[in-house]
Amino acid sequence: MSQVEAFSAAEVIAAKRDRHSLTDPQIDWVIDAYTRGAVADEQMSALLMAILLNGMESREISRWTDAMINSGERMSWSALSRPTVDKHSTGGVGDKITLPLAPLVAACGAAVPQLSGRGLGHTGGTLDKLESIPGWRASLSNEEMLKVLQDCGAVICAAGAGLAPADKKLYALRDVTATVEAIPLIASSIMSKKIAEGTSALVLDVKTGAGAFMSDPEKAKELAHVMVGLGKRAGVKTIALVTAMDIPLGLTAGNALEVRESVEVLAGGGPSDIVELTVLLAREMLETVGITNVDPAEMLKNGKAMDVWRQMISAQGGDPDAKLPTAKENLTVTAQSSGTILSMDAMKVGLAAWRLGAGRSRQGEAVQAGAGIEIHSKPGDVVAAGAPLYTLHTDTPAAFARAQESLTNSVTIGDLPKDGKIDRLPLVVERITD
Amino acid sequence: MSQVEAFSAAEVIAAKRDRHSLTDPQIDWVIDAYTRGAVADEQMSALLMAILLNGMESREISRWTDAMINSGERMSWSALSRPTVDKHSTGGVGDKITLPLAPLVAACGAAVPQLSGRGLGHTGGTLDKLESIPGWRASLSNEEMLKVLQDCGAVICAAGAGLAPADKKLYALRDVTATVEAIPLIASSIMSKKIAEGTSALVLDVKTGAGAFMSDPEKAKELAHVMVGLGKRAGVKTIALVTAMDIPLGLTAGNALEVRESVEVLAGGGPSDIVELTVLLAREMLETVGITNVDPAEMLKNGKAMDVWRQMISAQGGDPDAKLPTAKENLTVTAQSSGTILSMDAMKVGLAAWRLGAGRSRQGEAVQAGAGIEIHSKPGDVVAAGAPLYTLHTDTPAAFARAQESLTNSVTIGDLPKDGKIDRLPLVVERITD
Repeated sequence: MSQVEAFSAAEVIAAKRDRHSLTDPQIDWVIDAYTRGAVADEQMSALLMAILLNGMESREISRWTDAMINSGERMSWSALSRPTVDKHSTGGVGDKITLPLAPLVAACGAAVPQLSGRGLGHTGGTLDKLESIPGWRASLSNEEMLKVLQDCGAVICAAGAGLAPADKKLYALRDVTATVEAIPLIASSIMSKKIAEGTSALVLDVKTGAGAFMSDPEKAKELAHVMVGLGKRAGVKTIALVTAMDIPLGLTAGNALEVRESVEVLAGGGPSDIVELTVLLAREMLETVGITNVDPAEMLKNGKAMDVWRQMISAQGGDPDAKLPTAKENLTVTAQSSGTILSMDAMKVGLAAWRLGAGRSRQGEAVQAGAGIEIHSKPGDVVAAGAPLYTLHTDTPAAFARAQESLTNSVTIGDLPKDGKIDRLPLVVERITD
Repeated sequence: MSQVEAFSAAEVIAAKRDRHSLTDPQIDWVIDAYTRGAVADEQMSALLMAILLNGMESREISRWTDAMINSGERMSWSALSRPTVDKHSTGGVGDKITLPLAPLVAACGAAVPQLSGRGLGHTGGTLDKLESIPGWRASLSNEEMLKVLQDCGAVICAAGAGLAPADKKLYALRDVTATVEAIPLIASSIMSKKIAEGTSALVLDVKTGAGAFMSDPEKAKELAHVMVGLGKRAGVKTIALVTAMDIPLGLTAGNALEVRESVEVLAGGGPSDIVELTVLLAREMLETVGITNVDPAEMLKNGKAMDVWRQMISAQGGDPDAKLPTAKENLTVTAQSSGTILSMDAMKVGLAAWRLGAGRSRQGEAVQAGAGIEIHSKPGDVVAAGAPLYTLHTDTPAAFARAQESLTNSVTIGDLPKDGKIDRLPLVVERITD
C-alpha cells in the first residue's frame, strides 16, 4: 500500500450513504483498491449496503461493471469461424436447461462458450450437475476451452480465476453480509463475467416466481432491463426472457437426476416444459447471431444435438455412456387427497432437494450426486389420495424428515376452477430487448 | 467459536436491511457475538450502515445500549458519601468546559467521576488538554479513581478497557466505514459508557452549529431527546442542554492554551462565555442531585473551585504550578478590513488548530501540547484593518500555510445591522428534560 490513494474509502462510502452518485474515478478506484486489498472488507460491505439501500443510476452500474471487467482478463474467440452466443439463467428449481441447450445451439451452427457456476442454497449449479457424470472435468485452461469449443461447438466449464476477480471477491463478501439482493450488484456481477467472457451475443433467462431469486415479476423485469442495457453498452447483442419459476421446471431437482432428464430431452423425449423452454431459448440465441434457417426442434429429434452432447462430455473426460450415480436411499411422498393439483411451490421443492444433499450451504461444500427429488405429478394433473407425488433420494436418510417438512403444503389439490384454468405464470412472462 | 450460535449474522443484517425491528434476542446476540469475534467486522459494518439508513425505534436503541453495557464491567460509587453527577459534551471547538466545571461542582458538594476521551479531528479531547500539564496521568486503576474522587470530590481520567468493550470495537469500526453519523449509534455509544460508569445523574451538553458534530439544531435536539430517554430508562437522572457551537467557545483552541484559559476561569476571570456556560452547567448538575443552596459563581470567585483543581491535578501526578508548554513558533493573522466582526466559523477555526498540531487524524497519533490558536476578537467586537485577529502556535512551522488556508473567510467583518443584533445561536438553544 505504498501508492498514494486517489480517494479514501470513507469518503466514497459517505457519498453513497448520503445518496450522491459515485463519480467514474471513485468507482474505478474503489473496485481496483478493493481487489488489491487497499479497501478493507468492512469498508466494502458498508458501501455495498449503502448501494443496496440507496441504489445506483445506470451510469454508475455501467462503470461499476466496467471496473470489475478491468480487474481481470478479457477473453476473445476471434480464432473461431462460428459466431459465439451464450445464455445465462438467474437460476431456478429444476433448471437444467443449459445442459440440452448448449449442444443444441452448437448443432444448429453457433459456438457456445458457456462459463458456468456452482449452486448455493436452493437452486442447483450447472457444474454440480455435470460433475455427476463419471470422469467429467469442470476446470479447463483457456487453451483447452478453445479446443473443446472448436471441436464440438460448445463448452460448459468453470470460469477461470483470471476472469473478473473483483466480482469473485465481492460475491463471497455479499454472501455473508446480506447484500446479495441488490439489482445493481446482481446485474453487474452477472454481466461483468459474461462481457469479460468475450461472447458476441447473449440471451438472459431471468427467472421469476416463488422458486426464483427475484420472486416479484416487476423486480425481475427491472433486473432484465438493467442487464440488457449493460450488454448493449458493451457491444454484446443481448436480449432477456423473464420466465416462470413459480413451479419447478421438469420432473427432477438434483444433480444426476437432472442430467438423466436432460439426456432424455436430447434423445427427443423429456418433459414438455423443458423441451419448450430449451427450443425457445435456442431460437433466441440463434436469432441474435443471424442463424434463422435451422429448426432447433428438428435437431433434438434427429439426434444431432445428442451427438454434440456426447462429443462435448467426452472432450472434458466424461463418459456419456456411464451409469449415473444413484442415491443409497429413497422415500415416496404421496398425495393427501384426491383431485387436481392446482399449485406446486418451487421454493419448497428446491429447499427439500437442498436438504436431501443436492445443494450446499456454503461455498466449497461437497454435494451428493444422487440426491434430489423426482416429481410424479405437476399442476393440472389429476391425482388420487395415496398416489405417489414425489420420490426423495439421499445418501443420508436422516435428511428425509427435514425434506418432508419443507414439502409440507408444497402442493394444493382441489377442484379445477369452472374456467378450467390454473392460476400460474405463463412460461414467458416478458421478452425484453432494450 | 465452538458454541452453537442463536442467530446467523446474515439474518440479523437482512432484518434491518428490510426495515424490520431487531428483536431483543437478536440485539443481545449480535453485540455479544461481535465482542467475542463470532460476527466479523465486515458483517457488523453492513449492519451499521443498515441502521444508519433505516433507523432504529426507541426500544431497539435501549436494548443496543444495554447490550453494550453488558459487554463489560459496571462501576459503582456506593462507597462515596456524596451524590455523583457527570457531564458529557458532544464536543466543540474551544470546549474546555469540563476543566473548570468538574472541580467547581465538587467544590459545591457533589462528586464528579468524569471519564473522558481523546480528540479526533477538529475538536479537542479533555485528556489531551490535561496531558499538557507536566506530570499529569490520564490512566488510573479503579482503586486510584475512587481514591481521587474521595479525596478531591472530582476525578477526570480515561475510561478503563473493561468499560463497554463492545463500544470501543464499534467506535473504531464506525470511524473507517462512514457509519459515525447515526443518532442511534451516537446515542448508544455515549450513554453505554456513561451508564456503565455508574453515575447517578448526568447533564448532557449537546453542541450544535457549524463547529459541532450535529450542525443542524433539529438533529442535535433529536440526539438529546434520545440520550435523555436512555438515561432515564437506566435510572440515571439525565437532562440535556443543546448549546451553541456556531462560533468557538472562549478565546483559545489547543491543549495547553485551553488549560491556561481554564485556570483563568478558576481564578475568577476568563472569557465571559466560558464562565457563563460553566456556571450554567454547574447549576444543572447540582440541581439533578438536589444541591440548591450553593452558588457556583461564588465558588469561582472565592477560590474554592481552584483549591479542588489544584488538589485534583496533584493527585494525578500533575504540578498545578508548573509552566505550561508553549509552541516553538507563532504567527499573527490580521483583520483584512475595519468594522464589526459579524460571524466567526467555528469549524474553520477548529480545522486550523487541528492542522497546527493540536489534534490528531487517527487514533493513537501524538498531539502537540503547545499548538493551537488564540482568538483576539470575537463576533460583536470592532476591529481595525491590520489589527491581530488570531495568533497561530505550532512546533512545525510548515503547518502555518494550511492553517491559514483553513482560516480563509473564517470571519465576516462589516457594519452592524440597524437593530444592533448579530445573527448567531443563543448560548442555550434548548433545555431537554424528557
